[in-house]
Amino acid sequence: MTKKLRIIPLGGLGEIGKNMTVLEYGRNMIVVDCGVMFPDSDMYGIDLVLPQFDYVIQNQEYLRGIVLTHGHMDHIGSLPYLLRQMKASIYGTGLTVGMVKRQLEEAKVLQQASLHVVGEKDIFQLGPFKISLFPVAHSIPGSVGLVIDTPAGAVVHTGDYKLDETPAGGRITDLERLRELTPNGVLALLADSTNADKPGRTPTEKLVAGELDRLFAEATDGRIIIATFASLLARLQEIMNLAAKHGRKVALTGRSLEENVTLARDLGYLKIPNGLLVDINARVRDNQLLILSTGSQGEPRSALNRMAQGEHRQVQVKRGDTIIISGGTIPGNEEEVGRMLNKLFERGANVIYGKLATVHVSGHGSRDEMQTMLEVVKPKFMIPVHGETRHLHLHARLAESLGMDPKDVFILKNGSVWATDGKKAWLDQPVPAVDVLVDGHLVGEIGAVVIEDRQRLSQDGFIVALIPVNARNKLAGEPELISRGFVPVNGTSDLLQAAQKEIRREFKRGKKVAHESIRDTLQNFFYRETQSRPVVLPSIIRV
Amino acid sequence: MTKKLRIIPLGGLGEIGKNMTVLEYGRNMIVVDCGVMFPDSDMYGIDLVLPQFDYVIQNQEYLRGIVLTHGHMDHIGSLPYLLRQMKASIYGTGLTVGMVKRQLEEAKVLQQASLHVVGEKDIFQLGPFKISLFPVAHSIPGSVGLVIDTPAGAVVHTGDYKLDETPAGGRITDLERLRELTPNGVLALLADSTNADKPGRTPTEKLVAGELDRLFAEATDGRIIIATFASLLARLQEIMNLAAKHGRKVALTGRSLEENVTLARDLGYLKIPNGLLVDINARVRDNQLLILSTGSQGEPRSALNRMAQGEHRQVQVKRGDTIIISGGTIPGNEEEVGRMLNKLFERGANVIYGKLATVHVSGHGSRDEMQTMLEVVKPKFMIPVHGETRHLHLHARLAESLGMDPKDVFILKNGSVWATDGKKAWLDQPVPAVDVLVDGHLVGEIGAVVIEDRQRLSQDGFIVALIPVNARNKLAGEPELISRGFVPVNGTSDLLQAAQKEIRREFKRGKKVAHESIRDTLQNFFYRETQSRPVVLPSIIRV
Repeated sequence: MTKKLRIIPLGGLGEIGKNMTVLEYGRNMIVVDCGVMFPDSDMYGIDLVLPQFDYVIQNQEYLRGIVLTHGHMDHIGSLPYLLRQMKASIYGTGLTVGMVKRQLEEAKVLQQASLHVVGEKDIFQLGPFKISLFPVAHSIPGSVGLVIDTPAGAVVHTGDYKLDETPAGGRITDLERLRELTPNGVLALLADSTNADKPGRTPTEKLVAGELDRLFAEATDGRIIIATFASLLARLQEIMNLAAKHGRKVALTGRSLEENVTLARDLGYLKIPNGLLVDINARVRDNQLLILSTGSQGEPRSALNRMAQGEHRQVQVKRGDTIIISGGTIPGNEEEVGRMLNKLFERGANVIYGKLATVHVSGHGSRDEMQTMLEVVKPKFMIPVHGETRHLHLHARLAESLGMDPKDVFILKNGSVWATDGKKAWLDQPVPAVDVLVDGHLVGEIGAVVIEDRQRLSQDGFIVALIPVNARNKLAGEPELISRGFVPVNGTSDLLQAAQKEIRREFKRGKKVAHESIRDTLQNFFYRETQSRPVVLPSIIRV
Repeated sequence: MTKKLRIIPLGGLGEIGKNMTVLEYGRNMIVVDCGVMFPDSDMYGIDLVLPQFDYVIQNQEYLRGIVLTHGHMDHIGSLPYLLRQMKASIYGTGLTVGMVKRQLEEAKVLQQASLHVVGEKDIFQLGPFKISLFPVAHSIPGSVGLVIDTPAGAVVHTGDYKLDETPAGGRITDLERLRELTPNGVLALLADSTNADKPGRTPTEKLVAGELDRLFAEATDGRIIIATFASLLARLQEIMNLAAKHGRKVALTGRSLEENVTLARDLGYLKIPNGLLVDINARVRDNQLLILSTGSQGEPRSALNRMAQGEHRQVQVKRGDTIIISGGTIPGNEEEVGRMLNKLFERGANVIYGKLATVHVSGHGSRDEMQTMLEVVKPKFMIPVHGETRHLHLHARLAESLGMDPKDVFILKNGSVWATDGKKAWLDQPVPAVDVLVDGHLVGEIGAVVIEDRQRLSQDGFIVALIPVNARNKLAGEPELISRGFVPVNGTSDLLQAAQKEIRREFKRGKKVAHESIRDTLQNFFYRETQSRPVVLPSIIRV
């Protein structure tokens, strides 16, 4: 390798999730973040999506460390899978490392990791890379951005940030420190593009606190149930404070929420007054109780959805309950959330969601904040990261509208290899970086073919035709059709009988009957009769 | 039947779509609207959802007519299916009847219908029902609300409306006429609940016109491509006007759009300057061309999505194109729309969507407008219609907050039978009103079992195990496994080989081996190995 700086995003480009970026200089490599992505709804049956690690694993001898910006799953969630395959040193602030540690313990790979807690303004050296942290405001405490000084120049990686002036906990994005850390200018900026399609500024978290305060004051009769993301720890702190103010105890339901609260409290990131938390089974008067719950996305097994279904063991939703959905709906989850809300209303609750009140704001800055970041950093080169393709393009156009030369703004793909000598920049040969699909125990075994089969099965089901054939290639009995998901199988099923007749006719025609000809005959027959295209699989049984 | 008024919603409650309401008095029945619903994403493989018509068909001898509020598919789209089974007289304004006529012609059931065009302020008698129309502002011209005078009292059905003061075409909701038509008060109000979770007023359509004007002025270099709903005819008129103003010709792409424009123009509902429309193949300079397209929802075969995929025969998207998505994303379509937008950006277009500019507003009024409607009508009884369960509840609570007695506000379900003698109201025995699913040629044959099978197949695929067994119930050859959508079938497939071994072991155990025991063995085996639950179908083959 020649002495050049190479930046290789392995995930997070063209998608919101599985953020992972490699930086290389000579025989030295660092990795920033190592996240998972939750599957799109067209990834049928898939539980999780990982970045493809191969490049890192093949070059593990050069890896000087993995640096984490914050503890959200799309930034740390793939570590257990990576550490199944190699050892690594991992650096992050206290809460981030605490969350990683718990994950690695659960996955039984903790011994593979050397964990390093760093302060939010620490500076440390990993090979030729000098890493300087600066605090950023985001929806989880301990979030940082990175200034990475390299022999080719300084690289700024914003992590996830907003320029909230009044965030929960008062911890703002420290642009002053970012300026101090980059006295000689910035070679390349890698900046969060999530909200590049949102004009203006993201509303401050303080707005949410004010709105919740008002709703708490109005909910005088019954319980308050708030569903939010378990990882929105800054929001949880606000809710705890407001509960105390309004004389309500707080009970938790949902495993991830209980775990995160315990962890954040143990590490000093959540300040909970003594006696505020009560067990979910404790007897507390309705108007003195607040229940914090998982399930803002309508996830089937989440605590709030179990309440909606009437299947929650401790909480039966009833008239008088005020339920607040304090988490934005992630695109793709709208229908599930909608169904859950319908059921909660049916049970008599007053549900506050969506535009009814500002009970959620994004943790990512909008266009005006992106503009400020660009103006503060003034990079020579800019690489929009952390966004779908449309967000990357809009972020790039924003940079260009501020005067950057379009040839200095790089819209990369996962696996792109961006290289620079500190003066000019170019693209090297890309490295493999496809989606690695996790389905139950299977990691990486399920590919496009299986997903396409599932897609087709989901639309029209399948038919397996068992066809007994003798040595002279004649039909030697009644064909049997096995079907699911196509048409109702009980009842008269004239259609399947007619299909059997088609098969007999095919044999009578006297041509040599083969697997393919029967498949085509049946496919055509079913399409003609139903305008559907079930998966047809003939199986010729030699008798 | 005793002399009482009965109101029976057969669709549109607990859902946005397939609006259809029956009103009965003695041996007289009218139907208001007869729409379809587009399926939720968990209705695998379903093309359309119809209301269950059985009650209307059984009582067809009493039907005095079907009255339509406007020409959107969720209000007229089921008529071709209903008219396959019975004849009916249908009443609507010119555009509405025009759209119905085209549909019925296509479905070859026009001879079943007696079509009646009525004016937007007409009054006509259907048996004991006096129907008086009043104009409402909505996103399609010719929309009306209904005052239905019955011997029990007046019923107001709002249809779909907003109280836009500056709508496209200047046609506002005529509350003055509504007041005139109800001099003796209103017994029951059936009111649109779509936006019951949106505070304030729905922005005026004029805002969209202004924003489009600004965007047209900015797009000096290249083509403008606008995707919108083909049924948003009021918006189409604005766009045509602006195109003329900015010196652009208009080309249409997308069958539904071309058909609707032709129809609306023929009926006088669209005023298009001579020479404005050009063929999509016409040679026009980029900065003098506007392309109107279908596909605001990212539908796979829509014109805009074909452009995004590079598969549109006439239009290749390129740098310099400004693409405007002038249609809100229907919940459930977010991911498809997002993927389409990504591809359009990749092709170099500047795409305006979502919050980037106000290029779409809803055609339904928000909470403040609902409040005004309630205050104008002052009904004795109120029945929120046209909404998911959450919208009905929020609409009901709004009515209660304005002083209505909760016992006078009825949240009904499809099939509920609301009855009144003009003084009190109660619920009679409900009638059947489930979802009727259309899948290709199959209407009503696909039920929950098939949908559940498809859901399961979409997650984990299936395995059919062909097991040759002899007369003594012993394994008589190698079991064969046929699988799709579970694990990759090519390659080594250790898993399927291990499963064959499981089957042999099951037989060796010497117990009587049956279909069920093999299924359980395989299900347990696959779950243990993969944590997935494919559909397992053993087939025992007697040899």
